[in-house]
Amino acid sequence: MSNSTNIPQTPASTKRAAAENFIGTAWVTMLAGANLTDCTVGDVTFEPGARNNWHSHPAGQILVVTAGVGYYQEKGQPAQRLRVGDAVTIAPGVVHWHGAASDSLFTHLAINPNVSQGVANWLEPVTDEEYQAAHG
Amino acid sequence: MSNSTNIPQTPASTKRAAAENFIGTAWVTMLAGANLTDCTVGDVTFEPGARNNWHSHPAGQILVVTAGVGYYQEKGQPAQRLRVGDAVTIAPGVVHWHGAASDSLFTHLAINPNVSQGVANWLEPVTDEEYQAAHG
Repeated sequence: MSNSTNIPQTPASTKRAAAENFIGTAWVTMLAGANLTDCTVGDVTFEPGARNNWHSHPAGQILVVTAGVGYYQEKGQPAQRLRVGDAVTIAPGVVHWHGAASDSLFTHLAINPNVSQGVANWLEPVTDEEYQAAHG
Repeated sequence: MSNSTNIPQTPASTKRAAAENFIGTAWVTMLAGANLTDCTVGDVTFEPGARNNWHSHPAGQILVVTAGVGYYQEKGQPAQRLRVGDAVTIAPGVVHWHGAASDSLFTHLAINPNVSQGVANWLEPVTDEEYQAAHG
């Protein structure tokens, strides 16, 4: 068994993350798009202060931090500061956000298993108050 | 829904890869072990000349190259040279090997979706002749 999905892929073109789901600017580069493993991998870089809206993933997500400093917060929990080499496993259905610290770029891989179940359910923006509290 | 699997994880202790499945030395650091997404992520560094045996994955695998230069080869196909930023999606059941070039360290993330289906089926070592041919 062999097919063209197994050819090494150089990264796809970098796209700006959808403005309706982010505050500030983030850049997304798909490293492995739709494929026979039903798992996708994207590289996401947030500019300082940028973060995504509250959201959840039907099949969960894994983040692996590759550069900079940022935050991950689940609804009702304190924010967690993330550094290079940290990984976060996000269980299916958990409402959360992630993004850069106010003074740092932040890059993570976003690994989405079983994307045929859906990628993300987007909710309301992270307010400035919520975002500032993460830095406390 | 929230649970302790979502706490950011610093990398686990680095382990030497199982000698029976590798030629040369490789080091494995699990970044995200067993978790509610059923997808694991490990960081694998091959010393120059090191490679794993021919093998396949019941649910496939995605490699994302993060350092150095290496090779990926499917049975019956020419080897592909891999550099930083390359990603390889390996479909379920495809027999292949990967490892460092003879003159370079090589590091990739190994993403294993649906590990409850099994991680890997190991086969015979990659011979010196097969390995040298990859460099041709």
